[in-house]
Formats: sequence, structure tokens, C-alpha cells
Amino acid sequence: MKVAIIMGSTSDLSKVEPAVGILKDYGVEVNVRCLSAHRAHEGLSSFIEECNNNGTEAIITAAGMAAALPGVVASQTVLPVIGVPLSGAVLDGMDALMSIVQMPSGIPVATVAINGSKNAAYLALQIMANQHPEIKKRMLKDRKDMEVAAMKANAEVMEKYQ
Amino acid sequence: MKVAIIMGSTSDLSKVEPAVGILKDYGVEVNVRCLSAHRAHEGLSSFIEECNNNGTEAIITAAGMAAALPGVVASQTVLPVIGVPLSGAVLDGMDALMSIVQMPSGIPVATVAINGSKNAAYLALQIMANQHPEIKKRMLKDRKDMEVAAMKANAEVMEKYQ
Amino acid sequence: MKVAIIMGSTSDLSKVEPAVGILKDYGVEVNVRCLSAHRAHEGLSSFIEECNNNGTEAIITAAGMAAALPGVVASQTVLPVIGVPLSGAVLDGMDALMSIVQMPSGIPVATVAINGSKNAAYLALQIMANQHPEIKKRMLKDRKDMEVAAMKANAEVMEKYQ
Amino acid sequence: MKVAIIMGSTSDLSKVEPAVGILKDYGVEVNVRCLSAHRAHEGLSSFIEECNNNGTEAIITAAGMAAALPGVVASQTVLPVIGVPLSGAVLDGMDALMSIVQMPSGIPVATVAINGSKNAAYLALQIMANQHPEIKKRMLKDRKDMEVAAMKANAEVMEKYQ
Amino acid sequence: MKVAIIMGSTSDLSKVEPAVGILKDYGVEVNVRCLSAHRAHEGLSSFIEECNNNGTEAIITAAGMAAALPGVVASQTVLPVIGVPLSGAVLDGMDALMSIVQMPSGIPVATVAINGSKNAAYLALQIMANQHPEIKKRMLKDRKDMEVAAMKANAEVMEKYQ
Amino acid sequence: MKVAIIMGSTSDLSKVEPAVGILKDYGVEVNVRCLSAHRAHEGLSSFIEECNNNGTEAIITAAGMAAALPGVVASQTVLPVIGVPLSGAVLDGMDALMSIVQMPSGIPVATVAINGSKNAAYLALQIMANQHPEIKKRMLKDRKDMEVAAMKANAEVMEKYQ
Amino acid sequence: MKVAIIMGSTSDLSKVEPAVGILKDYGVEVNVRCLSAHRAHEGLSSFIEECNNNGTEAIITAAGMAAALPGVVASQTVLPVIGVPLSGAVLDGMDALMSIVQMPSGIPVATVAINGSKNAAYLALQIMANQHPEIKKRMLKDRKDMEVAAMKANAEVMEKYQ
Amino acid sequence: MKVAIIMGSTSDLSKVEPAVGILKDYGVEVNVRCLSAHRAHEGLSSFIEECNNNGTEAIITAAGMAAALPGVVASQTVLPVIGVPLSGAVLDGMDALMSIVQMPSGIPVATVAINGSKNAAYLALQIMANQHPEIKKRMLKDRKDMEVAAMKANAEVMEKYQ
Repeated sequence: MKVAIIMGSTSDLSKVEPAVGILKDYGVEVNVRCLSAHRAHEGLSSFIEECNNNGTEAIITAAGMAAALPGVVASQTVLPVIGVPLSGAVLDGMDALMSIVQMPSGIPVATVAINGSKNAAYLALQIMANQHPEIKKRMLKDRKDMEVAAMKANAEVMEKYQ
Repeated sequence: MKVAIIMGSTSDLSKVEPAVGILKDYGVEVNVRCLSAHRAHEGLSSFIEECNNNGTEAIITAAGMAAALPGVVASQTVLPVIGVPLSGAVLDGMDALMSIVQMPSGIPVATVAINGSKNAAYLALQIMANQHPEIKKRMLKDRKDMEVAAMKANAEVMEKYQ
Repeated sequence: MKVAIIMGSTSDLSKVEPAVGILKDYGVEVNVRCLSAHRAHEGLSSFIEECNNNGTEAIITAAGMAAALPGVVASQTVLPVIGVPLSGAVLDGMDALMSIVQMPSGIPVATVAINGSKNAAYLALQIMANQHPEIKKRMLKDRKDMEVAAMKANAEVMEKYQ
Repeated sequence: MKVAIIMGSTSDLSKVEPAVGILKDYGVEVNVRCLSAHRAHEGLSSFIEECNNNGTEAIITAAGMAAALPGVVASQTVLPVIGVPLSGAVLDGMDALMSIVQMPSGIPVATVAINGSKNAAYLALQIMANQHPEIKKRMLKDRKDMEVAAMKANAEVMEKYQ
Repeated sequence: MKVAIIMGSTSDLSKVEPAVGILKDYGVEVNVRCLSAHRAHEGLSSFIEECNNNGTEAIITAAGMAAALPGVVASQTVLPVIGVPLSGAVLDGMDALMSIVQMPSGIPVATVAINGSKNAAYLALQIMANQHPEIKKRMLKDRKDMEVAAMKANAEVMEKYQ
Repeated sequence: MKVAIIMGSTSDLSKVEPAVGILKDYGVEVNVRCLSAHRAHEGLSSFIEECNNNGTEAIITAAGMAAALPGVVASQTVLPVIGVPLSGAVLDGMDALMSIVQMPSGIPVATVAINGSKNAAYLALQIMANQHPEIKKRMLKDRKDMEVAAMKANAEVMEKYQ
Repeated sequence: MKVAIIMGSTSDLSKVEPAVGILKDYGVEVNVRCLSAHRAHEGLSSFIEECNNNGTEAIITAAGMAAALPGVVASQTVLPVIGVPLSGAVLDGMDALMSIVQMPSGIPVATVAINGSKNAAYLALQIMANQHPEIKKRMLKDRKDMEVAAMKANAEVMEKYQ
Repeated sequence: MKVAIIMGSTSDLSKVEPAVGILKDYGVEVNVRCLSAHRAHEGLSSFIEECNNNGTEAIITAAGMAAALPGVVASQTVLPVIGVPLSGAVLDGMDALMSIVQMPSGIPVATVAINGSKNAAYLALQIMANQHPEIKKRMLKDRKDMEVAAMKANAEVMEKYQ
């Protein structure tokens, strides 16, 4: 079980890190790269090629501003590509969202929320779960735990306001 | 190979149809439903339950305005859920995009472009391709055909402006 | 006199709290819950069912990002449902506003300002005032007090700039 | 059972009309007025005063552009005021939405979708249903009918794509 | 020479103050009020009536969120009304700008930049300058001083980067 | 009594024309020009100079897209400058609104609604009314007529829905 | 004198054509291509390489939606790259504008207006004019002609409204 | 080799400074000015005239809010004009972007990202590189260095997450 994570800049590291943690926690091998579509064109193509041939099951891409990275990756693979729009110094990530989600026909990018790298990891897991019953099992359990935690939080809120 | 497509309203039918065509063309069994998160709450839950147990590999959801459908579906399954924001009478689909892409942690929706149902189909295929080599093979071939077609269009444009 | 308040996440607590205070101050019984539409699906349905049968007169819902909560609640009750869009880490609450206000025909959500939980409480009171003359009386008095306070503030401003 | 509907301009008539139909169909007496907050200041105040004293249970207001009408009405009554932002020649109704939903504390307006006059009517009905069991009964029935119609539409869609 | 300034809330005071200073510096009598269109309806109408009869030559209005104040003032006078949209806790003042600038035909509001109370003062002065040659003379001198100051700043920048 | 109207392009003619009609109807001499800030730089400066010296009391400017015209005019005069943002082929006039309303301190432009040339004319009249009692008188009468017309429209609406 | 024009899709042809006409009229050799960054990855890279070595002086790129083309081209050349955001079926080209203008440091794209291919041509000419005195001469003449035409249009407008 | 940089206000200095550094580092003579289109009209025209005659090869302009500066400069020269939209106190620079990028036909401004003065410098260098082989050589080297640095950063990221 293998997922690739590509960010566009080392300044995105802290926003991408939660995804790495979640995936490793599920026992997934994670290959993290920092390869800008604009600054590391060839290195990026080599890595995508590598992913296409080493059993990678999904590629998470995270980028801000005019975020070409997810689309450029998507154009060189038929692996599922997940895009995480990152907020930058200005514009709150709307520029990255527009650059990632509005892909032309034939080259989809599975876009998640602005700064939503956790959900990128969960989406990658859900994609892998089709083939890996142990992931599906763990996810179903985690969903139940999430619901239990939610109901516990609810109980505390109820008590607080009684 | 099975994909579910759920739209929120029969008025979305023509925008969703291209996805059905693409999937069937790839030999995928497609179960199409019209089940609003707001108007057909129980019918929706039953169908998601059905998908959870009949080997469905991805669920495409398409909705406009305050598009709760994709998120509600995603909250009841760990299958990959793809969301297509639809443009409506006003606002060009920005309302649906915001309602679909900005999901909270733990419940991802793989969002594609506004009115991008074709890419929803391709994304579903890419997700299935991990498990189904025949889909991967066809997709790789289609990508090459797409590139050939693109280069042919380019040749015509070149000629026209010479 | 009974009002329910449902928030989507415990992180919304401080933004919701002012509504609790106002309602209690009017002698209204307030049932506060933290039940995400996406994470506590069944707990939410049970609580709505409870509201439908225990004399609750309005349901205030508060949520951020892809805020499905208000609409999901509205789809399971004919009690008046009030929606409070909450601002999040990015986008200033425009995502939540779009997700709450743009409801399809048949399932209205009474939307107030971004982070406007105080007005959600006042709106609930105005809805109850139709049936509860003591609330109407108090509200009319409070409006007068508000006007008196406004005129006093005006007098101070006048004096300051004379 | 009495509801008032105020629009800002006669050009809004066709957008407001669906609300009148729904309310009359429920046996509600509807008082329709065209009273701009900017052009018919005194006439508007007189009519609000009238509503405050004639048993009106909710006031629906519909306006476009810099839509002051809903807020001005809300400031002169403690009846529930519902605001319908209308799209105009440009800007798709975002200007009206901002002008209506972003009310200051103490003076709420229950805002529905852009051009959402139908939902304004349903919201008014839900507000009245607290006091009028016959409306509640009818609404519950209509919701069931809506669900039945939704499931029938779904059945047709299923059949079409089988 | 008399100008009125009306703000919607005492929390707007610091944003409005620069206008008071500029006008007083030009020898203009300034009547400052804090009269919300929504909370001090009658006090506002009385003050507008006063302005209509005491030789006031322009009314500056400043308000945030669903800023009805400028339009409501404009509807009760034929004096030039200047509107200053104020930024609030969220949305950067776009809500106020939409609520102020998009006035319907017949009732104009002269809108300036978000938080632009200084320019509201200058605009009021320019309006008065038509009748008061001493203001025009001073404004022309100030424009020249502004240009001199600008050219001096330019000289410093030039020197710095030589 | 003299007002200047400057548009940026002959394609704006039909959007500007209503202002000419209103002003002429009030007996105001109107000098209409088509002088782009970008294409007719010197002609524009000459005409502003002319306005500064021929008793012009207000300058109405109308432009679309990156609408520099109003600001450029404002920088060369202390006459009140009114800006009308025009909608273009795309973006609904938001680009023009941003370019006109967000003026820096010291150089105000009195901005009206997108495509709001009628209100530009009324604002010019209100500015002139300070000095010209006959305009003030006519405006007060027209406001009353407007209110009478509004109340008549209201009466028709009332009748229609009785 | 050589300029390259690359569009992302043959459907952009009519929006790009005006640029071809202007450049040819100036005697510039124009190489037009249709090479999507997403669909014709290798063809695009070859053509950029060709431009880098055949004396091309500027590359005009035009694309809609998640418009990666301009940035991808810019990352493979140090020739000046001009980007034209194209409006699509929805969103008026704001998605393309965000995707083109918000480039990261080191890889600039000279962005012009939405659908502004004419200005892309003029910008290319201005870039070439530094080296080609005949272009500079013609541009200065054309600017004068433009001003003469503008003043003639102004004269007609003046006459019409006299 | 000569480039001019014009900012609209001394408060923009720190945002413009990076461009000066880059250009000087390439051995380009940089003439920096602070000349607002609105406040230093004549000084600006003189400086543009100077640029037109002293061998300047590109003019970088940076301005915020209703940023007329880039367009006004562009209208008085056929040198390539680069526009940098600056973010201000509110609106994140969207106002400046709209005011700069949406130029009418015939007068292009090469717009870069919000606060993107570094890219303005690089774009100026790329424009000059057509004529100055030493700049082109250095840029090609710098691009390679940038790629090497990017690959080194990537290697560190890889190591960190192994």
C-alpha cells in the first residue's frame, strides 16, 4: 500500500504534514516530495513516472496560488490525483481552489477543502479501501469511533448547558 | 464493476447524463438515482446502504445550490464519494462548489469542476483502475488517443494560420 | 417555551453561547447539542425527532464550512429552522453562508448573518412571540430600551464632538 | 391566519407571486404591498404599524440591489420578518443577499435563497404552524407527498438508466 | 457652512473621526450623530428633518454590514448623501459596500471607498466649494500642497535608490 | 447651471444617455464628451481644465473594466466627480466598481451603482440644489411625485391580490 | 520578428484570432498552436523548445478554467510569456484569471484582461519594439491614430448632444 | 540596461523593494520613483516622457486600491508596462488586481500576482533578455540553479519523511 504526496514548496510542509501522519498510522507507505510544477519540471515528471510503475495507488498534491501542480500531475498519470488548495499570503486560497478544481474534461483532479490535507489522506485511504479490506475495516471502525467521540462531545455540551 | 450516480433533482439530469455514457462505454454497471438529501432523506440512506453492500466502488453525486447531497452521502459510507457542483439559475455554481468542497475533517468529498460530470466519471474510472487492469489499460489507451487527437487538432490549427 | 440549539462542532461553542444567554434570559428552556450532520448522523436524527415531539418551537443550527447541518435538520422537521453561518479558518464564512442560505424549494432555512448567533436567538423569540404574549411584551420593551440606549449613545457622541 | 408580503418594486411582482399562491393554497389571508423603503417611506411605516395590530403573524419582504426593505421593516416590528434577496440586472443577487442577511444584533431578518420566494412562504407557514395545528398537519402531509413525489421521480430515473 | 455626519454604531467612531477633523480644519460646522437606521429609527428621521431645515449642505453616513443607513437617510432628503462602507469582523466591508452603492434609481448615495471617511469629508468639501469660494481656494491650495508633498516624497525615494 | 458628462468609450453611449435626459429635463446645460483616460489623455485634460473654468458644477464620469477615468478626472479638479461603473462583456461591472470606488485619500469619487447613470444625474442635481433653489424645489416636488406614484403602484398591487 | 501563440483548446480559436490579425498586420511571423498543458504535454514541451531556439521573441498563451498552460510554458522558457485568461461556460473567467496571474516567484506570466487577446498582441509588439525600431515607429503612429480616432468620436458625441 | 519602477505611495516601498534588489543584482540601472497617478499627475507625465527618451526598456508600476497608475503610465508610452497589484488594508488586493488587469484594447498592462514585485523584476529581465544576451545567459543559469535548489529541497523533504 503506497501513496505519494507532492507539495509545491517547502513552505507548504506544515500544511501537508497531517496527511503523512494519518496515512502512516494506517500502515501506508508514504513517499513525500517537494516538486513544483513550475520550478522542478523534470524532477516532477520522473517522480510521476516512478509512481506509475511502483504500485502507488493515489497521488496527493498540495499547492497554493496559481496551483498548476495537481493538474500537471493528473495529466501524466491515470492514478487518482487528489488536490489540496493551500491558502497563501492573500486571497485565502480561493486562487488555488479555482486553479485546482476547474480542470478540463478528461483530466480530473479530486479536490478537497482549502488546507484540507487531512481529508486528502482520508480520501486516498477510501480509494485504497476498495482493494485493501484491512483499510476498509479500520476506516469503518474509525468512523464508529468518530461517531462515539462526537456523541461524547455532545453529552458534555448537553451537561454544560443544563 | 459498479458505480452509483445520485443527483439531487430531475432537473439535473442533462448535466449528469455524460457521466453515465462514459461509464457504460467502459463496461461499468451504473446505478442512477435521483435522491435529494433534503427531500428523500430515507430513500437516500437506503440506497447508500445498498451501495455499501453490493460491490459499488465509487459514488458520484451531483447537486446545485446549498448542495448537501455529496456530504450527506459521504457521511454514510467509506466508499470514495465524488461531488459535482452544478450551476443553477443564479451564482454560476459557486454556491454548490462552496457547499461541496469545504467538507470538515474525516468526511472527504472528491470535488470536480462546476458541471464537471464527465470528469466525475473519469475520476471514478481511475479509482477503479487500481483494481481492474482492463480499465487501466483502456484509460492509458484513451489518454494516448486524446493526445493524438490533440496533436491532430494542433496540426489543423497550424495549417490554418500558416 | 422551548428552543433547541445544535452546533456542528465543539469548536463553535463560543460563537453559539451568546444565543443561549439571550434565550435563557427570556425564560426559554434551551436544549443545546453538538451534533454534526456528517459525524453524528443518527444522534442528530434522534434529537430532531425528539424536538418534533417535545414542544420545541424553533431549532437554531450553527455550522461552518460546507455547512450541511441546517439543511439536514430542516429536511426532518416542519419546525422553523434558523441557520447561523460560522466563519472558519479561511474564507470568512462565505462558504457556510452559501451552504445554508441557498436551500432548494420546500425546505427553508431562516438564515442570519455570519457569526450572528445573537440574532438567531432574537429571531427564535420573535417566532415564539406570536404565541407567547409575555415574550412579545418583553421584546417590545427591549426594543424601546434599545432605542433609549441608542439615543443615549447618540447624546454622548453629540456632546463629544460639540 | 394572516401574512403580509412587501416587495420593493412592481418589477419584482413575478418573483414574489409564487409565495402568494402557496400561502393562499394553505388558506392564509395574504396582504400584498409594493412599498419601497426608499420611495414610499411613510406608506411603508403605516403598513408595518397595521401589521403590528391586525394579527399578522409574519412579514415576507422581497427586494433587490441595496435591499434595505427587509431590515427597515424588521426595525419597526417584532413580528418575524423574512427576507428574499432578488437578483437584478447585474451581480446575480449577491448585492441583495449581503444587504439582507448581514443584519446587526437585535434586528434579525430570516433570509432565504436568492429569488427564493417559495421558501419564504414555507418558512412563514412553519412559523404559523406552531400555533395552527391545521397548518402543521397539512405541512407534514405535504412533506410526505414531496417525499413520495421524489421517490417516484427516482423510480423513473432508475428505469430510464437501466 | 454645515455638514452632518451620522454613524450607525458607536463602534464606528474611530473610523469616522478623521472626517470630523478634516471638516473642522476647513472651518465647517460639523454635527456628529450616532443614529442606526435599525435601532434609532425615529431619532434618525428627526435629525434628517433638522438637517433639511438648518442649512446643512451634505450628510456623511457611515455604516457596516447590511448598511441601510445611507439609503434610508437619502430617502428622506434631497441633500447630497455620502456613504462610507465600513469593514466589520468578517467580509472586509464588501457587505457594506454592496448595501450602500447599489441604490435604486431616484435615491442616490455618493459612495466612497471602504473605510474611506477622509474622502467622504473631502467630497463634502468639494460639494460645498461650489458655493463657498474660500473652501474652493483652500482646496486648490491643498491639492497643490499635496502635489508638492508627493514630489518631495518622490525626491526622497529617488535619493534612497540612487 | 452646467454639468459635464464624460464616458470612456462610444460603446457606453446608451448606458449614459438616461443621465443626459434627466439633467436636460431639469434645465441644466449638459456637456457630453467621450474621452478615455487611456486613449485621449490630452483631450481629457483640456476638457477638465475647461470645466474648471466655465462654471461646471459637477462632472459625471462613466467607464467599464479597469475604469481609470473617474479617478483621473478627480485628480485634476476640485469639482465634485461622480463615477458610474459600467458592466462589460464579463464580470458584471465588479471590475469597474473596484476601480472607481476604492480611491486613495484626498481624491474622492462619488460612486453610484453599476450602470447607475440615472442616479449620477440625480446626485449632480442634489449637489447643485444647494445653490439653485429652483432645482431643490423641483426635486422636492419630484420626490413627492415619486412617492405618489409608488403609492399608486401599491394600490394596484393591493387590488390585484385581494 | 516572430511570436508564438498557444491556445489550450480549439474552442478558444475565435477568442485568440484577433491577436493573430494584429501581429500579422505588423509584419510579425506568427506561429499558432493548439497544445493543452494537460492533454498535449509532450507536444507542448517540444514546441516551447522550438521557440527557445528559433528566434521567437514572445509567447502568447490563452486558456480557460484551471488554466495551467501559461505557467507551464513560462516554466520552460525565459522568453516573455503573456497569459490571456478566457471566460468559459460559467464563472466569467475568474477561474482562469486566478490560475494565470497568481504565479509563484521566479516564473512570471504577463497577464492581460479576461478575453484580452488583442492586448496580448499589443504587449508582444511593445516587447519587440525595444529591438525593432520599425515596430516602435508604427506603434507610436498607431497610438496617435488611436488618439485622433478617439477625438473624432468625441467630436461626434459632442455634436449629438448639443 | 535601464528599468523604471514607479510606486503610487511611499507606503508601498517595502513591497516594491525586492524588485529593485533583483534588477540591480543583474546589473540593471534602476530608476525608482514614487509618483501617484492621482496626486502627482504632472510629475508622473514628466517621468514617463523621460523614460520614453532615455533608453528605459520596461516600466514596473505598483499600486493598491483603485490602482490607476499602471494604466495611466501605459497610456503615455509604448514601452512594456508591468503592473503589480498591491494588497491594502482590506480586500486582499482584489480591487487593485481588477483595476490593473482589466485594461481596454490598445493599452496593455502586463499584470503579475498580487504583491508580486519579484516577478515584475523577472518579467522585466525576460523582456530585456531578447536584446541582452548576458541577461538571457544569466537567467538560464539562474533557472538551472533554481531547479537544483528545488531538487535539493526535495531531497531534504524525502529524507525527512523516510
